[in-house]
Amino acid sequence: MGRDAAPPGFTRFRADVAYDGTGLAGFQLQPGKTTVQLRLEVAIQAATGGFSRVHPSGRTDSGVHARAQVIHFDSATRMAPPQLLRAVNAHLPPEIRLTRVARPRTEFHARFDASGKEYRYFIWNDPVQDPFTRTTQWFVPWALDVAAMRRAAALLRGEHDFASFTANARRDVGSTVRHLRRLSVTREGPEITITASADGFLYKMVRSLVGFLERVGAGKLTPNDARLLLDARERNRQVPTAPAQGLFLWKVWYGAISSARADEE
Amino acid sequence: MGRDAAPPGFTRFRADVAYDGTGLAGFQLQPGKTTVQLRLEVAIQAATGGFSRVHPSGRTDSGVHARAQVIHFDSATRMAPPQLLRAVNAHLPPEIRLTRVARPRTEFHARFDASGKEYRYFIWNDPVQDPFTRTTQWFVPWALDVAAMRRAAALLRGEHDFASFTANARRDVGSTVRHLRRLSVTREGPEITITASADGFLYKMVRSLVGFLERVGAGKLTPNDARLLLDARERNRQVPTAPAQGLFLWKVWYGAISSARADEE
Repeated sequence: MGRDAAPPGFTRFRADVAYDGTGLAGFQLQPGKTTVQLRLEVAIQAATGGFSRVHPSGRTDSGVHARAQVIHFDSATRMAPPQLLRAVNAHLPPEIRLTRVARPRTEFHARFDASGKEYRYFIWNDPVQDPFTRTTQWFVPWALDVAAMRRAAALLRGEHDFASFTANARRDVGSTVRHLRRLSVTREGPEITITASADGFLYKMVRSLVGFLERVGAGKLTPNDARLLLDARERNRQVPTAPAQGLFLWKVWYGAISSARADEE
Repeated sequence: MGRDAAPPGFTRFRADVAYDGTGLAGFQLQPGKTTVQLRLEVAIQAATGGFSRVHPSGRTDSGVHARAQVIHFDSATRMAPPQLLRAVNAHLPPEIRLTRVARPRTEFHARFDASGKEYRYFIWNDPVQDPFTRTTQWFVPWALDVAAMRRAAALLRGEHDFASFTANARRDVGSTVRHLRRLSVTREGPEITITASADGFLYKMVRSLVGFLERVGAGKLTPNDARLLLDARERNRQVPTAPAQGLFLWKVWYGAISSARADEE
């Protein structure tokens, strides 16, 4: 599955896609399941009259949301991007929406051209759950020490081998070294937001980082355990995987990330 | 149904309640329907072992949400407020939550003592619907002129006869004059928030005001039509009722509202 250009007579399209992953079995096609890819391919076919394979910047797991997933596909349609956006949206269920359609250069590849990604994870940290964020936040009723979570996050930022923070290292082809440019923890009232951006992420890496940070916030682990875990390079029961419903694929970058930009908090 | 004190051996409780009204048939008990009142009375009985009638600050319609509805009820329970809050929440479905329980003076009445209310109405104004606000905002795909909506809102603020802005004037006992202290229209990106506060509201008044403001924003009516409608004192087809899912009962005030506080935008 290498890079290729749109075949003659076909146009390559790039689209930004938002989805509420609550009732969906993740992005990728799976026999007998309703996935984002299935819904998109069915809607594009209904809108254009021809089948298009949909390629995302990367998969998202069952129950994970996207504010701006990026996909590409080739189509023989003559529709202009705004028209295609309306036509595809008319065939999508309301939990999935194209928010933008563009005609990139003909070799644009949603996955291979991605230079970085940002995920956000939301925690509702209050003794009482919020009725309105049940499907978009992780409800943690015990008190979390955000200052401790920030100290742990600071130790995780930068370039490290994150083998201890992936659910299945064997699923990750090649190196488990990643450059975590940003890992921030902010609180506004009962809502804690964890923002992670990197050149790329391992399988379930963000949910593993969040699972670890929650344990630190709860006082069950210390910020310094981040060092020990990074050094261990092996998954450990001290790193739980945070639940899917709090996770959003927030942004995908294409093109060079300014090297002048220092690692952020 | 007059004001009364808690009977001997009973304690009066006040609670703030948040609910996602999406799957609920409004607040009030109705044969064969799942309502907020039914869920609360069942949960309180399960938590305390005795039946308590629940009295709200006012009803909300089917599909309408509450960030902070206020209720009162009497119970023979010996539980302290924080304990009662946890016990009742443990028996409520996740779309309804007590967010605070208190012991007010024994004659406190959620409806008769309310001195004012604030509602907020949310509109998602963008050509593409947002997958995450389908059940909490009204999706309006055509462009809305917020400046025109504000001019109309300014004419509606203050003390007026709002008979043209209620769904069924006969359902409103007594005067249809209300003092609309605040009616503001703000926009942040695609999200328009309409905030309305008053000493009291007529039946479906907020959704009627929003329905009218949307028509002004869409250019189908002019701000000055507000004057004509107020003067007409009769419901008119020019005032549609905005859908329930965008409406939140946001706050209920008890005690005097400072008379120094001028009408706000």
